[in-house]
Amino acid sequence: MKETGNFKEKKFSWPTGFYSDGVNCDLRKGRPDLGWIFSKTPAQAAGVYTTNKFCAAPTKSTKQLVSDKHLLQCVLMNSVIANSFTGHKGLLDVQSEQEAVSEKLGIPSSLVGVASTGLIGAPLPLKKILTGIDQLKLTKNTTATRAIMTTDLQPKLCCVTVNIAGKSCTITGFAKGSGMIHPKMATMLAFITTDVAIEAATLQALLTELTSSTFNQITVDGDTSTNDMVLTLANGASETALLTSKSPDFNNFKKAYHHVLKSLAQQIAADGEGATKLVEANVNAAKNKAEAQKAAKAIVGSNLVKAAFFGADPNWGRIISTLGATPVAFDPENIDLSLNNHLLVQHSEPLVFNREEVSKSLQSKKVIIDLNLHAGDAAGQAWGCDLTYDYVKINASYSS
Amino acid sequence: MKETGNFKEKKFSWPTGFYSDGVNCDLRKGRPDLGWIFSKTPAQAAGVYTTNKFCAAPTKSTKQLVSDKHLLQCVLMNSVIANSFTGHKGLLDVQSEQEAVSEKLGIPSSLVGVASTGLIGAPLPLKKILTGIDQLKLTKNTTATRAIMTTDLQPKLCCVTVNIAGKSCTITGFAKGSGMIHPKMATMLAFITTDVAIEAATLQALLTELTSSTFNQITVDGDTSTNDMVLTLANGASETALLTSKSPDFNNFKKAYHHVLKSLAQQIAADGEGATKLVEANVNAAKNKAEAQKAAKAIVGSNLVKAAFFGADPNWGRIISTLGATPVAFDPENIDLSLNNHLLVQHSEPLVFNREEVSKSLQSKKVIIDLNLHAGDAAGQAWGCDLTYDYVKINASYSS
Repeated sequence: MKETGNFKEKKFSWPTGFYSDGVNCDLRKGRPDLGWIFSKTPAQAAGVYTTNKFCAAPTKSTKQLVSDKHLLQCVLMNSVIANSFTGHKGLLDVQSEQEAVSEKLGIPSSLVGVASTGLIGAPLPLKKILTGIDQLKLTKNTTATRAIMTTDLQPKLCCVTVNIAGKSCTITGFAKGSGMIHPKMATMLAFITTDVAIEAATLQALLTELTSSTFNQITVDGDTSTNDMVLTLANGASETALLTSKSPDFNNFKKAYHHVLKSLAQQIAADGEGATKLVEANVNAAKNKAEAQKAAKAIVGSNLVKAAFFGADPNWGRIISTLGATPVAFDPENIDLSLNNHLLVQHSEPLVFNREEVSKSLQSKKVIIDLNLHAGDAAGQAWGCDLTYDYVKINASYSS
Repeated sequence: MKETGNFKEKKFSWPTGFYSDGVNCDLRKGRPDLGWIFSKTPAQAAGVYTTNKFCAAPTKSTKQLVSDKHLLQCVLMNSVIANSFTGHKGLLDVQSEQEAVSEKLGIPSSLVGVASTGLIGAPLPLKKILTGIDQLKLTKNTTATRAIMTTDLQPKLCCVTVNIAGKSCTITGFAKGSGMIHPKMATMLAFITTDVAIEAATLQALLTELTSSTFNQITVDGDTSTNDMVLTLANGASETALLTSKSPDFNNFKKAYHHVLKSLAQQIAADGEGATKLVEANVNAAKNKAEAQKAAKAIVGSNLVKAAFFGADPNWGRIISTLGATPVAFDPENIDLSLNNHLLVQHSEPLVFNREEVSKSLQSKKVIIDLNLHAGDAAGQAWGCDLTYDYVKINASYSS
């Protein structure tokens, strides 16, 4: 159990008033492929969505619902088939899913969000999905967190408790990656549930702000899939007073929420396809935060940097070259660079260092790049993973 | 011998009045690593250079010379060590190289360009280079075209003859890649020599224009190295009348020159690190040329697209997803997509196709993607290669 400030990580469990379940409805063999989350009352809802022009039907539909009413009571989710690039039929299929859930749970279909991930361009096997909905129950199990997995090796989970107005509240998040666009698959989904009482507008502002420094700062190939979506549902079941940006505990909630988003983002990067390690870039002393984040993301997105770390190669020239190709402001004669706390470049002067020692440190499960641009006082972070044989294998071996 | 319009490809040879040589000066074992090209008279010179903020010393210095005087008589070139990120000492080393060449050939040092490719951050082994300069001769051999190779599997060569005012003139180009930034190496160099009589300003305008649709449209990882440079030297030794943009043969020259640049660019992409095939994206009916080129380059730059082609997988969903993530204008409900002339998507409707047949066609040495955006009448092309196990191996195996 890790303690940071006023919140605590704890074993995964659903917040008060949230239920979930997952089943196999035969979209694939032997693993759950359909799940849901449900709140006993309509929950305040916030979301961020893909900017890809080919926005998938379920993403488009859920975005519309959340934007219109700012409320959701259930989210249905499936893997294997993305219901993306499926035209008008795709939207009708989403409607059928919403109506089936609505009927089964006795809630308006306008409170049912849908999220899909999987093959682009294939129609949704609606009959199987409807049979699956029939089997879903209102339990407290965690099967849904595995039902959305594609090439993910493990579910991405984060659960914290945070004290709000003297009461212990819960924020529970889960996500799928796997660190990048999956072969034929589409792609990153994350769901956060909390029993904190907070209005959708406040939640949306927080989610938008925090996504820019968490989910938007992970990359494996810089692609933005057709189905990307992060949803947060807050049902207020903790029965605390309404949390607003003026509440004394607002910052506690923000920190805890940020922790959950960042943890899920890092877990997605670390479990990138074929990845053997998490790569973190910290860009400090940049002119502004946007530039710091841009530089950090460019570095963890470079194939050359990623391949070097697979080989535990302290090849800082590639980091320099990637940095120099960004439009970020700095003086090329004055940057510092460290790898896993070994200072390799100071004021743009290459330092003599023990290659064997640094290479050994790069064999660990996490590589940390620290850059100082001496150009301001803003900082930014980004996370990625190494580029490995298995990455190529996974992505080339789906030959039809 | 391929004939296209008014020019003809022919076996590699130097244009009238150009000489060259290459030697091994012990920067590496057993292969030439230092070379030069020389014109019997000062040649009109044009260049395009890296936009990387960490511009290497030789690139910076040569850019300055060409911008100031628009003349070069000799270009010295080496591989293995890039003389990049080497501070003031790097510039002094370039000066020493220029002076040594100047003294040996009896020409002003301000007519000596220098180009380096190789390890970033290491000092130039000046003594070895100076010994090498001492050994270089004014021959007609092609050793220089191999002296600049790093992980390139073969030299990139293109030589054409073109009729200008009734005389047969020659345009000879060579380049190194290898399709991307080399591990620790930096990077793309290309040199074009011609005996056509043309002024530097005209040549520079042409080179700048044509680079945008040739060298700037190849990618393997989207990186821009610290040493990238394309130089063209025109010495007028064919004794034709001065070619201007008003000359009747100007377009013949332009077409022939464009052919050489495009051929070298494609050869660099096809010989990308670990590559087994060339991938060409043709984006048609775009709003404007810049958008067509941007979309084409995004597609050949996608790791997922590249890995799919390694696996001969007709996985068009990845192309769609990459296209959708670009800022390019089009109607998501109306695009067409073909792979190797097999139409797979029409008006955004996935078509039924013979997977086996298309997959078989993707096993060839060249894959062609055709996209129709139905958004205008502009077209753009880009070239890349597939992403393979060998790519990862080459780039991860330089562990110190």
